[in-house]
Amino acid sequence: MLDFTFLSPAVTLSELASHRLISIGYSLPSLLATATGELEGEAYAKALGLALTIIAIVLYLSAQLLGELSVRIGLPAVLGELIAGLVIGLSGLHVIVLGGDAEVAGWMTMLVQSLTGGSDRAIADIFSGPVAIVLEDYAQIGVGILLFKIGLEADLKELIRVGPQAASVAISGVLLPFVLGFLGLSTLFHLDNISAMFGAAALTATSIGITSRIMQDMGVLKTQEGQIILGAAVLDDILGIAVLAVAVGIAEHGSVDLEDLLRTVVSAVLFVAAAIALNRFFGQAYMSFLEKLKNPYSVFVGAILFLSVTAGFTSIIGLESILGCFAAGIVLGDTSVTKELEEACEPLIALFSTVFFVTIGAKTDLTVLNFTDPESRVGLWIALFLTILAILTKMATGYFVFTQDKVDRLAIGAGMVPRGEVGLVFAGLGAATGALSASVNVAIILMVIGTTFVAPPLLRWAFSRQTPAVG
Amino acid sequence: MLDFTFLSPAVTLSELASHRLISIGYSLPSLLATATGELEGEAYAKALGLALTIIAIVLYLSAQLLGELSVRIGLPAVLGELIAGLVIGLSGLHVIVLGGDAEVAGWMTMLVQSLTGGSDRAIADIFSGPVAIVLEDYAQIGVGILLFKIGLEADLKELIRVGPQAASVAISGVLLPFVLGFLGLSTLFHLDNISAMFGAAALTATSIGITSRIMQDMGVLKTQEGQIILGAAVLDDILGIAVLAVAVGIAEHGSVDLEDLLRTVVSAVLFVAAAIALNRFFGQAYMSFLEKLKNPYSVFVGAILFLSVTAGFTSIIGLESILGCFAAGIVLGDTSVTKELEEACEPLIALFSTVFFVTIGAKTDLTVLNFTDPESRVGLWIALFLTILAILTKMATGYFVFTQDKVDRLAIGAGMVPRGEVGLVFAGLGAATGALSASVNVAIILMVIGTTFVAPPLLRWAFSRQTPAVG
Repeated sequence: MLDFTFLSPAVTLSELASHRLISIGYSLPSLLATATGELEGEAYAKALGLALTIIAIVLYLSAQLLGELSVRIGLPAVLGELIAGLVIGLSGLHVIVLGGDAEVAGWMTMLVQSLTGGSDRAIADIFSGPVAIVLEDYAQIGVGILLFKIGLEADLKELIRVGPQAASVAISGVLLPFVLGFLGLSTLFHLDNISAMFGAAALTATSIGITSRIMQDMGVLKTQEGQIILGAAVLDDILGIAVLAVAVGIAEHGSVDLEDLLRTVVSAVLFVAAAIALNRFFGQAYMSFLEKLKNPYSVFVGAILFLSVTAGFTSIIGLESILGCFAAGIVLGDTSVTKELEEACEPLIALFSTVFFVTIGAKTDLTVLNFTDPESRVGLWIALFLTILAILTKMATGYFVFTQDKVDRLAIGAGMVPRGEVGLVFAGLGAATGALSASVNVAIILMVIGTTFVAPPLLRWAFSRQTPAVG
Repeated sequence: MLDFTFLSPAVTLSELASHRLISIGYSLPSLLATATGELEGEAYAKALGLALTIIAIVLYLSAQLLGELSVRIGLPAVLGELIAGLVIGLSGLHVIVLGGDAEVAGWMTMLVQSLTGGSDRAIADIFSGPVAIVLEDYAQIGVGILLFKIGLEADLKELIRVGPQAASVAISGVLLPFVLGFLGLSTLFHLDNISAMFGAAALTATSIGITSRIMQDMGVLKTQEGQIILGAAVLDDILGIAVLAVAVGIAEHGSVDLEDLLRTVVSAVLFVAAAIALNRFFGQAYMSFLEKLKNPYSVFVGAILFLSVTAGFTSIIGLESILGCFAAGIVLGDTSVTKELEEACEPLIALFSTVFFVTIGAKTDLTVLNFTDPESRVGLWIALFLTILAILTKMATGYFVFTQDKVDRLAIGAGMVPRGEVGLVFAGLGAATGALSASVNVAIILMVIGTTFVAPPLLRWAFSRQTPAVG
C-alpha cells in the first residue's frame, strides 16, 4: 500500500546511527558531545554509561573481595577497600585514575571503543572527564552521608560531657606533631623553614572519615573512647583549617593574619554551638513537621534537604562541607524518626562510602617508591620519620585527657592516628606551589598511607585489650 | 624562637588562595580546571559543590512541595515531581537546564560567583558541564534502581501467567497508534511519509518508569492489571527499538533491514527468557552466597554488582540499560533476602528517582507554545491530534486482552498511556536529523507532555472505579 522507495534519503545512516539506541536519560548536553569531537549524542552517552559500568564492576568486585578478606582475618572492611583502591588505582591496574597525567588502562578504552567507536582520545577524555566527576561526586556523597549518620547516632549529652576531654586530645594532637615535626625536619633533615612547616602541618589533622568508619565497623563508636575520638576529630578538622591559615600567612607575609585566623576559629566554634542549640529548638519540630506530610519519602528527603542547606552553609563560611553534614546529623538526632533516618542512610553508605575509600587508595601512587633514585631515598627516610612521629604523637594524645574516669588512653590515641585526605591536601598544596621538594612531597604521601593502613589494626588491638565500657 | 620574616615569599597568596579550604574529595582532575580557564583546584571544586548544593535545595524543595500538594488532592506524588520540573526547568525558573543552548538563571551564576570568583563563562560552564553530567547520572541511578526494585517485587509466576495477555497489549499498543498515527498525519495534515512515520513511531512506546512509579504510588503494582501493564511496558520497550530500526531502515534505504530487525527482537526475547531461567538457577544461589559473607554490606553491594553487569550487558547487545536493571531484579527476586534488598532500594529511589522525574519536567520547554506564530499553530493542531490519538489507542489496548478473567480493561489501557522519555528520543532524533519539521517536533513534545500529565489522574480514576483484585 505504501511505497517507501520514492522517499528521498534525506537522512543518512551515519547521522541516524548515533541515535540507534533508545537510551533513556543519557541525553547529555550537546556541548559535551561537541567537546569530545567525535562521539555525539547517544553514542557518547553509551560510551559514558559503559565506562561507568566497567568501573562500577571492578570497583565493587575488588572492594567486596578485599573487604571480605579483611573481615575474615579480623580487620575492618574499610582496610580492604583502601587496599582495593591501591590495586585498581594509580599504583596498580589503572582502572580508576583521578587527576594527574596518568591514563586509564588500555583494555578499558579499547573495550568501550570496540562497542561505541570514537578515537582513543575521545574515549580517554570520557574517563578523565565525566567519569572522574561522577566518581568524585559519589565519594562526596559517601563521606557526607557517613558523617551525617554519625552525627545522627552521636549521643549529644555524651559529646558535650566529653567535650573538654575531646578538646584536650585535639589541641595536643595538633601541637605535638606540628612542633616535633617542624623541629625534626629542620634539624635532622636540614629542610628550609617553609618545607618543614608544611611537612609538620600535614601531620596535624586526623581523618574523621576513616577513623569513624573503622570504629563503626568495630562497633566501638558509641563507647566513651569512641565519642572522645569523634569529638576530637571534629575539632581537629577545625584546627587543621587554622593551621593551614597560619602556614599560608607565614609563607606569604612572614607573619600570621591573626584577624583572619580568629574569624575562622570563632565561626567554627559558633557553628558547632549552633548545631547543638538547633537540635533542641529546631530539629525536633522539623522532624515532627516532616512526619505529618503525606508524601511517602518526605522524612528522608526532608532530612537530605536540610543536610544540603547546612553543607552549603559550611562551605560558604569557609569550613569543610563534611563538617556541615555532621552538624546536620547532630541537629536531626534524638527524635522519634532518627532511627528510621539512620537506616535509610545505610544503603547510601554501602554504595557511596565504598567509592570514597576506594578512591583514596586509588589516588595513592606507590610507584613513587624508588630505592635507586637518591632523592626518592631521602624521601623514604623522611617518610619513615614522619610516619613514626605521626603515630607516636597521636598515640600520646590519650594521656592529655584530664579525667578521673577510667578511659582507655591508648585506644583514644590509636583512634586519632589515621590522617587520610587532609594530609594529602597538604601534599597537593606543596606540590602545586613548589614550596615542597619532591622528596618531602613523597614523604607526606607515604606518611598518609602509613597512618591510614596502620590505624585499623592498631585501633583493633587497642580496643580488643579490654571490654569497652559502652557509653 | 623562630623568626619567619627571613623566609623568602616563594609562594604567593594567589597561588595558595585556591587551596585555602581543605575540601576533602573535591580534588577534581587538573584537566577540568584547565578546561574552565579561570577557576582552579579547590576554587573550582568549591564552585561545583555550591552549584550542586543550590540545585539540590531547589530541586528537593520544589519536588516536596508539589509532591505533597499532589498527594493532598488525591494524585500521585510523581505528578508533582513532573510539575516541579516544569517550574524549575526550561519552561520556568531555569534552575535546571539540561542540553540545548539555554543557560541557568542569572541569580545562580551570580551567587556562586560571589562566593568563589571566576568569570560568568567559567561558572556557566560548570552548570552546563559537570552539573549536567551529575544530574543525568542521578536520573539514571534513579530510574535504574526503580526498575530493579520493580523487578524484585514482580511476581514471576504471575508475570509468566499474564505473559500472553501482556504481549497482546504490547503488540496492539504499538500497531494501533503507529498505523492510525501514520494515516492521520499523512491524510489530515499532509505530512511527507518520513515525517509521518517518525511522528507515528513516537506514539508507540509506553514510559515504563512513569507508569510503574504511578502504580507504585497508588499501590496497584501487584494487581493482575498492574502486572499486565508492567509486562506490556517491558515488551513495548523492545518493540520500540524494533520500530526505530524499521524507521531508520526505511528512511535510509526505502526498505527494512530484516536481518538487523530480527536480531534485535530475538536477542531481546532471549534476554527476557534468560532472566526468568536465571532466577531459578542462579539468583537463589548467588543470594545465599552473598548472605554467607561477613562484610556487613555484602548482600546489597553484591546485588548492585550483578545489576551493573546486566545493565552493561543489555547496553552492549543493543537494548536499553533499564531493561537490564529490571531483568536483574527478576533474577534476584523471590529469595530469602529479597525483602531486605527491596527496603535497601527505597532511600536510593527517594533521592534519585525524584531527580529522574524532575529532570523530565525540566527538559520540557513549554515556551514553544506560541499562538501568534503560524507554524507553531499548525504544531498545536498536530499536537492535539497526536495526544488524543495517543490516549485513545492505548486505552483501546485493554480490549485486546484475550482472557476469561475479569480484568479491568480500562485500567490496563490507562496504564499504557504515559509516553515520557522514549517519545522525546524520537523528537530529538527528528530535530537532529532535520527529517521532522519544527511543527511536528513541537507536536511530539506536546504529546509526550500531554500523555505524561494525563496518565496519573486517568490511572487513578480507572483503578478507583473498582476495588482492584490483588494478584
